[in-house]
Amino acid sequence: MVGASNSPTRIGGTVFANLLRAFPGDVHPVHPKDQVVQGRPAFRTVGELPEPVDLAVIAVPAAAVVDVVAECAARGVGGATIITSGFAEAGPEGRALQDRLTQVSRETGIRVIGPNCIGYMNAHDGVMANFMVTVDEPLPRPGPVALVSQSGGFGSYITNKAVLAGLRLGWFVSTGNEADVNVTGVLRHLVERPEVGVLLSFMETLRDPEVFIDTARRAAELDKPLILLKAGRSEEAARAALSHTASIVGSAQVLDAVCRQYGVFVASTMEELLDLGTIFQNGRRARGNRVIVMTSSGGAGVLLADEAGQAGLSVPVLPEEEQQALIADMPVPFYGSAANPVDTTAQTTAMPGAYRKVLFSVARSASADLVSAVTWARPGPANDAIVEMYQSTDKPVAILSTAWSEQFQQAGVPTYTDPRRAMIALAALVRQSGRRPPGSARFTADAERARAARELIAAADGQTTLLESTGKSILARYGVPVTREEMAADVDGAVAAAERIGGPVVLKVMSYQLPHKSDAGAIRLGLHGQDAVREAYQDMLAEVSVRAPEAVVEGVLVQRMAPARLELTCGMRRDPVFGPMVAVGLGGVLVEVLSEAVLLRPPFDAGTATEALGELLGGRLVTGRRGLAEDERAVTARVMVALGELALELDEVSEVDVNPLRVAGGAVLAADALIVVRHG
Amino acid sequence: MVGASNSPTRIGGTVFANLLRAFPGDVHPVHPKDQVVQGRPAFRTVGELPEPVDLAVIAVPAAAVVDVVAECAARGVGGATIITSGFAEAGPEGRALQDRLTQVSRETGIRVIGPNCIGYMNAHDGVMANFMVTVDEPLPRPGPVALVSQSGGFGSYITNKAVLAGLRLGWFVSTGNEADVNVTGVLRHLVERPEVGVLLSFMETLRDPEVFIDTARRAAELDKPLILLKAGRSEEAARAALSHTASIVGSAQVLDAVCRQYGVFVASTMEELLDLGTIFQNGRRARGNRVIVMTSSGGAGVLLADEAGQAGLSVPVLPEEEQQALIADMPVPFYGSAANPVDTTAQTTAMPGAYRKVLFSVARSASADLVSAVTWARPGPANDAIVEMYQSTDKPVAILSTAWSEQFQQAGVPTYTDPRRAMIALAALVRQSGRRPPGSARFTADAERARAARELIAAADGQTTLLESTGKSILARYGVPVTREEMAADVDGAVAAAERIGGPVVLKVMSYQLPHKSDAGAIRLGLHGQDAVREAYQDMLAEVSVRAPEAVVEGVLVQRMAPARLELTCGMRRDPVFGPMVAVGLGGVLVEVLSEAVLLRPPFDAGTATEALGELLGGRLVTGRRGLAEDERAVTARVMVALGELALELDEVSEVDVNPLRVAGGAVLAADALIVVRHG
Repeated sequence: MVGASNSPTRIGGTVFANLLRAFPGDVHPVHPKDQVVQGRPAFRTVGELPEPVDLAVIAVPAAAVVDVVAECAARGVGGATIITSGFAEAGPEGRALQDRLTQVSRETGIRVIGPNCIGYMNAHDGVMANFMVTVDEPLPRPGPVALVSQSGGFGSYITNKAVLAGLRLGWFVSTGNEADVNVTGVLRHLVERPEVGVLLSFMETLRDPEVFIDTARRAAELDKPLILLKAGRSEEAARAALSHTASIVGSAQVLDAVCRQYGVFVASTMEELLDLGTIFQNGRRARGNRVIVMTSSGGAGVLLADEAGQAGLSVPVLPEEEQQALIADMPVPFYGSAANPVDTTAQTTAMPGAYRKVLFSVARSASADLVSAVTWARPGPANDAIVEMYQSTDKPVAILSTAWSEQFQQAGVPTYTDPRRAMIALAALVRQSGRRPPGSARFTADAERARAARELIAAADGQTTLLESTGKSILARYGVPVTREEMAADVDGAVAAAERIGGPVVLKVMSYQLPHKSDAGAIRLGLHGQDAVREAYQDMLAEVSVRAPEAVVEGVLVQRMAPARLELTCGMRRDPVFGPMVAVGLGGVLVEVLSEAVLLRPPFDAGTATEALGELLGGRLVTGRRGLAEDERAVTARVMVALGELALELDEVSEVDVNPLRVAGGAVLAADALIVVRHG
Repeated sequence: MVGASNSPTRIGGTVFANLLRAFPGDVHPVHPKDQVVQGRPAFRTVGELPEPVDLAVIAVPAAAVVDVVAECAARGVGGATIITSGFAEAGPEGRALQDRLTQVSRETGIRVIGPNCIGYMNAHDGVMANFMVTVDEPLPRPGPVALVSQSGGFGSYITNKAVLAGLRLGWFVSTGNEADVNVTGVLRHLVERPEVGVLLSFMETLRDPEVFIDTARRAAELDKPLILLKAGRSEEAARAALSHTASIVGSAQVLDAVCRQYGVFVASTMEELLDLGTIFQNGRRARGNRVIVMTSSGGAGVLLADEAGQAGLSVPVLPEEEQQALIADMPVPFYGSAANPVDTTAQTTAMPGAYRKVLFSVARSASADLVSAVTWARPGPANDAIVEMYQSTDKPVAILSTAWSEQFQQAGVPTYTDPRRAMIALAALVRQSGRRPPGSARFTADAERARAARELIAAADGQTTLLESTGKSILARYGVPVTREEMAADVDGAVAAAERIGGPVVLKVMSYQLPHKSDAGAIRLGLHGQDAVREAYQDMLAEVSVRAPEAVVEGVLVQRMAPARLELTCGMRRDPVFGPMVAVGLGGVLVEVLSEAVLLRPPFDAGTATEALGELLGGRLVTGRRGLAEDERAVTARVMVALGELALELDEVSEVDVNPLRVAGGAVLAADALIVVRHG
C-alpha cells in the first residue's frame, strides 16, 4: 500500500489496517518518511519493495498518483486500487490528471480501480483494500453475494445495510471515477468466478452496454441472478419525457426493457436490492409458484396470501386429506384453518411440539413449491422449529418476522419484515427458476432487401422524412402488411385507382412539406364511389393550397380504408445507450393519453415479440375480451421483428413510426408510416 | 378481572399482571377458589366486589361468559373486555353463545369489547387489559398514536413492530369477534379524544360504513390522519372481478375510492402503516412540497431525490446565494454539491462542525418545506447534529438511516430505512397538510324530477332493463347531454326523423329482448340521406328477425351520429358496503382492455368530480395533448354528478351504464345508455 498511514483516523490508516487484519499473505507499506507503519517495516518507494506484488493500493495525494501507478506498472504490479479523490470530480485540472491516469493504464496494461472510490473487498481471499468499514467494525460474513457500485459512499452505506440484513458478501467493489475499470466490466469479471452466485449492482450511469448485455447472457447461462438498482428514474424526468411523442423510448424505460429482455432483475428500491440478494444467496430454486403460508396470526397470513397473489404466486387450497392430517396435529378444539394460509392460531404458542409438526408437514406438502411462515423475532421454540424446518428441506423459504434475528442469519433463513417484500423476493426466485437462457438471437442481414430499401431512400433525394408511400414500400419489403394503395398523379388517376382498389378509400396528399397531413387538411377519409373520390380530391387539394401554400405535392395516395377494432402503434428509435429499440403500444388518439409500451432490442425473434405483447397493459391487451386475438398477435409480433431487422440493416434509418397499425378480424395493417433517415 | 390467574404463563395470569403493573387505581381479581391472586385479595363473584367498578376484564371459559357479563351489567359495570375464545369462530354452538352475548349487551347497555380478542390498552390512563406483551416485556412508549385492529394476533404482531419502529402508542384496541363494539365504532370514539392525534387501523371486514365515513369526516375536521391497512386485495381476487364487466366497481377498488374521497390514507403494506404513523406522530405539518435532501453519499441522495419526484414532491435547486453560503461552510477543496441534493461528501465525516452548520442552514432554508438527510445508525456527532437540527425546526423531517436507532427514537426523529419509504411518508404528510375538510356534501332530492323519471320507468311495464331511448330520456332529465334522437314506428317515420335530425344518423332497434344490440345486428351506423336510411332500416329489421326471432320490436331509434375523439364510459353500481358508486373510465373497445376507473360516492359536487377526473390514467386523461379539454372535463363531471343524484333519488335503479360517452370538440354526449331497475 502506497500512502499507508500510522494514523488510524486517516483513510490511509483505515485501509491499511483493514488490509492487515484480513490478508493471510504479505502486506508491505510504502511511506516516504515513517520507518514502520502499523508494525510493518515501510519502504520508501515501490521500486524498493523486496518482492513482486499482485496489487497496489494507493492513497497518496492526487498529484502524485499517476507517477506511482507508472512505477507500479514498471515493477510488474498487476493492478492498482486508487482511493485518492481530486480527479474528474474536481474540475478541469483533476480531469486532466485522470486522463493521464487512463493513458498510463492503457499504455502499460496495469488495471486500475478508482480513483475516488472506497476500494474493494474480496472476502474469499482476504483482500480488504477499502475503508467501507472501520477497523473496530466486524468484517462482513463472507458468501456468494457480490456487490458492485460506482458510488463509494453508497457502497459503504448499502454494505452496512447488507450486513444488518444478513447478506453474505463475498465481493464488494466500488469503481469511483472509472478511469479504467467500470461497473459493467467488474460484473463481467465476477459473473465467471465460481464463488460468486448472486450479483448486485448500483449504478448511476451504464457504460459499455454490449458488455452489460453479454454479462446478462452469461449470468443467465450460469443461472446466477443479476440484480440492478438504477438511480435516475424520477417522475419529474418521466414527465419531461412524456411531453413529446418520443416518450415511449425514454431512457429509464429502455433500461427496464433491456433488463427484462435479457433476464436482469431491476430492484425498484434499495431494500428490494437486499431482499432479492437474501432470497438468492442460498442458491435454492423453485419447482413451481405455489406457496403455502403458515401463521399463528390470521391477519398476517391474509396479508401474505394477498401479496403472494399480487406478486403472481399461487396460494393453493390444500387437498382435504392434507388438511385433515394437519388438523390431527393441532390443539383440540381447533379454531384455526388448515386450508392455506394454515392458521394455527395463538393456541399453538403454548404447544411448540404441535407447531413444529405442522410446520414440517407444510414444508413436505406436495402442494408446496415455496414455504412462508410468520414469526416474532424473540427467540423460542417456534423459531428453533423454523430453523430446523429450513434445514430439512431444499424448497425456498421466506419468513416474515417482526425484525431480523441473529439466529436466522446464522442459519441462513431468509427473513423479511414486510409481507410484500417477502413475496416479491419469492416471486423473483420463481422467475429465475423458470427461466431458460436466452437463445442466441441470430440475425443475418439480407443484402438484397437492404439494397432495394436504399434505392427507395435514395429516391427521396436528400429529404430526411420519407413520404408515407415510400415508407410503406420499404416496410412491405420487410414483411410488414400495409394497406392496399396506389399513387395518383391527378384526379382521373385517383378515380381509376379507387376503382381498382375497391371499397371505401382514403386520399392523402404526399408532400415532403406535410409530414403531419391532418394539420393541413391533406387527408380525406371514407370515400365511396367515383363522385365522392373526385369531389374529395379537388376539395382537398384546394384546401392544402390555402393552408400550406409552400407544400410541393408529389402525388396523391389512394388507400383502401383499413377497418379497426383496435389501433396499435409500432415504432423504432435509436437509444443513445442501447441502440435500436422497437416499441409497440396502443395507438390512435390514445397514444397521447397512454404512454405504456413494450420495448425490445433487436435482434429478437417472433417468439420473444409475442411474449412481450403479452405484457402490454398488464396482459390485458391479449386477455381482454376484445383485445388482440392470437392470429393478430402473431402478425403484430412479425411487424416488430421486421422493424428490428430494418433497424439492424439500415443504419441510416433513425426513426420509424407505424401509427396506426389497424387491427380487425384477424388482419393487422400499417395504415400510416413515417420513416426518418440521416443521409450520409 | 374475572378469571384472573396466579399462573403467569396462562392468559388470565398475563392479563392480570399487565393490569396490575400499569393501573394507578384499584384492580380486583375475581376467582372461584383462590383467596389471593398475584398478591391481591380475590372475590368469589362480581356481586361480592367491595366497590363499583368501571371495567370488567373477562377470561373465564366460554360457557360462563354470558352470565358473568349479565352479572357485571347488574352491578353497574360500564364495560367489559372479553378475552375468551370459542364463540362465533368455533362453529354453531359458539355462534349461539355470541348471539346471547350480543343480546345481553343490547338489553343492559353494557358495552363489550371482544370476545376472542387480545384486549386493549389505554396507555394514558394506565389500562393494560390485554396480553399483547408479556410481563417481562417493556410497556410501549405512550403517545398520540392509536392502533385499532380486529385481529388480535395481528394486533400483537404489529404492536411489536410498532414499538421497534419507535411508534408511540397511546391506544391499542383489538375487537376480535365484535359481538358489540367493532373497529369502526372504536375509531369513531377515539377520533374525538384529545390525546389521540393519529389513527391506524387494520381490518379484514369493514362494518358500519356510515360510521366509517363519519369518522373520516371528523378526522379531517380535527386534522387527525386516519390510516387504513386493508387485507383482501390480492390480484387473484382482482382477476376474478375483471372477468365480468362489473369489474370497475370491484370491492377493494370501492374502498380505495371511498378512502380517497374522504381523506383516509390507505397503506399498501404493513410497513407503510407504521411509516405513516411515524411521520404523523409528532403533529408537524408542511407549508409546501419542496424537500431538501442532505447527504454525504451521492448515490443515496440521488435515490432520495428520485423517490421524492415519484412521490409527487419537488426537489428544487437551491438559489445561488444559498448554495454559496453552504459552500462557505464546506471543506476546501469541496468536491460535493450544494444544489440539492446537498452532497457534503465523505469529507465532512471528519469535520462534524461543518456538517452541523450545513445541516442547520439547510433546515432554515426558505426553499425547504421538508428536510431529509442520510445517515448511518452508529452514534456520533453527525447524528447528534441531526437531533439538534430536528429540535430546532418545526418543519417535517425524514431521516434515511441504515437502521433504527435508540437515539433518534428517544428524540422522536422520524427514521426510515429505505428512500422510497421516507418519501412516501413525507408525501402523505404534505397531502394531509394541504387538505381542507370535505365540504358538507348537501343534496336535496328533486321530487318533481324523480316523479317524472318514475313515470318513464313505469312505462317499461315490469322490464328490468330499460330501452336505450327510455334510459336516455331519464338521464336527460338529470342534465346528462344525450344525442339528438327520435323514435320511429316504421320506415317512413325513420326517414322523416332522419331528415329532421340532419347529418349522418344511426338506426337502432329498440327491444327489451335486445339489450346488446350489435350482437343481433340491431344497429346501423353512419347513414347519409333518405335512401341510405330506408335501405338500412329494412335490411336491419330483416337481419334481426332472422338472428333474434323472439325479439319484440318496440320501435327504431333514429339518432344523430356523435363524433368522438375520445370515448369514455360512465356508470353507477350499488356496492354492498358503501351503496351507490359512480364510475368514469375509458370507454369503447378499451373498456375491455383497460379497467382503470375513478369512483365517487354520491353525494358529491362537480368540483370533486372534476378533481377525480384529473386522477384518471395517472392524470394523463386531462394532461395528454389530445386528452380531455377543460370544457369537456366540466361536462363529464356534471354527468357524474347527475348519475349520483339519480342514484340517491331513485332507489329502484340498480345500475346505469352510459357507454360510450362520446367526446369531441368540447361536446360530451351520451351515445348509448343502459338503466337497470328493480321493480316493486
